Amino acid sequence: MPSPLITLLTDFGSAEAFVGIMKGVMLSINPDARLVDLSHAVPPQHIMAGALLLRSAVPFFPQGTVHLVVVDPGVGSSRRPILIETDTGFLVGPDNGVLCPAAALMGRRVIRLIANETFFRHPVSRTFHGRDVFAPVAAHLSRGVAPEAFGSVIDSITELKVPEARCTGSTISGVVVHVDHFGNLVTNITAEALPRFPAQQVSVSITGTPVAGPVSAYTAVAEGSPLAIVGSWGTLEVAVRNGSAADMFAAGPGTPVTVVLESRDA
Amino acid sequence: MPSPLITLLTDFGSAEAFVGIMKGVMLSINPDARLVDLSHAVPPQHIMAGALLLRSAVPFFPQGTVHLVVVDPGVGSSRRPILIETDTGFLVGPDNGVLCPAAALMGRRVIRLIANETFFRHPVSRTFHGRDVFAPVAAHLSRGVAPEAFGSVIDSITELKVPEARCTGSTISGVVVHVDHFGNLVTNITAEALPRFPAQQVSVSITGTPVAGPVSAYTAVAEGSPLAIVGSWGTLEVAVRNGSAADMFAAGPGTPVTVVLESRDA
Amino acid sequence: MPSPLITLLTDFGSAEAFVGIMKGVMLSINPDARLVDLSHAVPPQHIMAGALLLRSAVPFFPQGTVHLVVVDPGVGSSRRPILIETDTGFLVGPDNGVLCPAAALMGRRVIRLIANETFFRHPVSRTFHGRDVFAPVAAHLSRGVAPEAFGSVIDSITELKVPEARCTGSTISGVVVHVDHFGNLVTNITAEALPRFPAQQVSVSITGTPVAGPVSAYTAVAEGSPLAIVGSWGTLEVAVRNGSAADMFAAGPGTPVTVVLESRDA
Repeated sequence: MPSPLITLLTDFGSAEAFVGIMKGVMLSINPDARLVDLSHAVPPQHIMAGALLLRSAVPFFPQGTVHLVVVDPGVGSSRRPILIETDTGFLVGPDNGVLCPAAALMGRRVIRLIANETFFRHPVSRTFHGRDVFAPVAAHLSRGVAPEAFGSVIDSITELKVPEARCTGSTISGVVVHVDHFGNLVTNITAEALPRFPAQQVSVSITGTPVAGPVSAYTAVAEGSPLAIVGSWGTLEVAVRNGSAADMFAAGPGTPVTVVLESRDA
Repeated sequence: MPSPLITLLTDFGSAEAFVGIMKGVMLSINPDARLVDLSHAVPPQHIMAGALLLRSAVPFFPQGTVHLVVVDPGVGSSRRPILIETDTGFLVGPDNGVLCPAAALMGRRVIRLIANETFFRHPVSRTFHGRDVFAPVAAHLSRGVAPEAFGSVIDSITELKVPEARCTGSTISGVVVHVDHFGNLVTNITAEALPRFPAQQVSVSITGTPVAGPVSAYTAVAEGSPLAIVGSWGTLEVAVRNGSAADMFAAGPGTPVTVVLESRDA
Repeated sequence: MPSPLITLLTDFGSAEAFVGIMKGVMLSINPDARLVDLSHAVPPQHIMAGALLLRSAVPFFPQGTVHLVVVDPGVGSSRRPILIETDTGFLVGPDNGVLCPAAALMGRRVIRLIANETFFRHPVSRTFHGRDVFAPVAAHLSRGVAPEAFGSVIDSITELKVPEARCTGSTISGVVVHVDHFGNLVTNITAEALPRFPAQQVSVSITGTPVAGPVSAYTAVAEGSPLAIVGSWGTLEVAVRNGSAADMFAAGPGTPVTVVLESRDA
């Protein structure tokens, strides 16, 4: 049976060797560890962006995967290192909210304070707990060390509130939560919210400008035209065919996106 | 015997977790899969750039490698998913031409329409066939599922015409097809075309400006000086020693590069 | 026993498939090779930057790791390919100084000229020894080929002088040697140099401007304020909490940083 996967999500970028160093530490502890990068381009110290990326990815990994997250502006302060056991896998990282949205997707949870320093790399630095605390813990977990060995159960952790779309009457009011590599504007309006209007006409607008759709493929509109589509995150996105919606609408996180049920009587 | 390699080439960038998600899907299907990134920095939806990168890489992978390519502006439309079997490995991706130049290098080919939905991830999204169609097919292939299980043989696919250098009299007329990370200008003038002038003098020019060479090492010219050299793609490149030829010549894909046999009598 | 790790450090960037190609070559030779990227974002042909990144990473890898480095402006010229055996692992790359600072950390050294062409990939190109020389040698090493098989011991190699901080009286004069992804300014003032002033007050300044610290965590100062801290490289860094010190001080490699022992009598 192969060793559980360990995924890595950080805001370290790829210019330095920080990510490689964490891998060296983990492979020193568990030579059979299988490592998968999620992203290292979380905007520096942007907990919400890291939390959303993590949540977007965890459903696609096998049972028992260890997700290691280092977006950690409070490193060296009193913020606590935590380990969350869920029905489908483990989350290891700082107690600053970055793990919460993913944990909420992953089923029944037990949260532990990481406290057993025998699993740390020593000396523990003040700036790089990714290397000295989180990576070693993840590697030991992947070798089969029981979660209870790392520390005691705790009741409360730092929560992170992801903005949710509001439904009022015939209108869903959402916002852009992420701009992806293509300039697509990912909203917080879930696919599940849309079928409230089954056989009816729906219109989508961004900052007051209507866009086509929701369409079923980018090719439903002409090149350079805007559209709405249920995207790769499972939520409504505003996109431009072969172009950048972020540029066209000068939009980013927080930009309002509205879905309205059109009246048939008008 | 280790599981065949799977390479990944996309235009997804590395900011989101899309590539990591495809890896999670593949490792869920084949825990022994060995994954190698070719590039995820294909310019968005740029089929030619993806095709050239793929062709540059396939000769260096072992027999049986599965090459997974997701440069897919037509995702969700009627463009077909295909699987190409060759003498040396497999190509999996959209039928938009991106696989063609590599396939032409890889020997005798059988092309299949990917149609057997039992190998897909469900529900199949409209925007991310990389995750729901191509990655699962590549992973099942790497586990030894026979190519015929995925779909029937088809005769014709979307072709992609890579511009070829023309030889007329004593002149080879080529173009820049790619600008690399160093600012080197990769042309479509192959090393094989050059020895047409064995012991004779050859001159290279770009947009009318002569450059030294073909030289045998960048160090043959002074720092900051331009040169021509047979580069890492096996074709003539125009480069600047410790500098950027793209900047010096304001050149890019399509810029003409000419090789002329110099008359000895002049 | 798993195959030794091979790490990769280059200035190739991630736009092309050059790194993937080296991996294909290595996995063709040793299908069990385990590969870890250190960085491919060394500034093009910047030997010092590559040397510092390599040195920052080697202490965290297991015994026997093979470190493959391709920052190689002299490729194709008379610069020599070398292999350095140390107590803790192997270094493979060009003889241009890039391997020296790491080798100095790694214990007793034997340096060999890589000369046995039976281990090369043929034909050997003039521009891509990473693919044709260094990657094959690293892969054969990782399979257990003895170092002496690759070539004879040589006495002298190209040295690289990393600037060292100077201690004079009550002052340590250092410089910034690297700007990291967060805009932190990594200096050459080691943690070991600082305790020269144990229970005494120390002040840190950059280009004449004093900054707080050395502090024990970024959170010791207000958001947007500058500080000094012993960072992830084991040396003093000037940082800005949740900001960029490189921007605030318009600083980069070479910028002077000074540590002064404050007189208690003043």
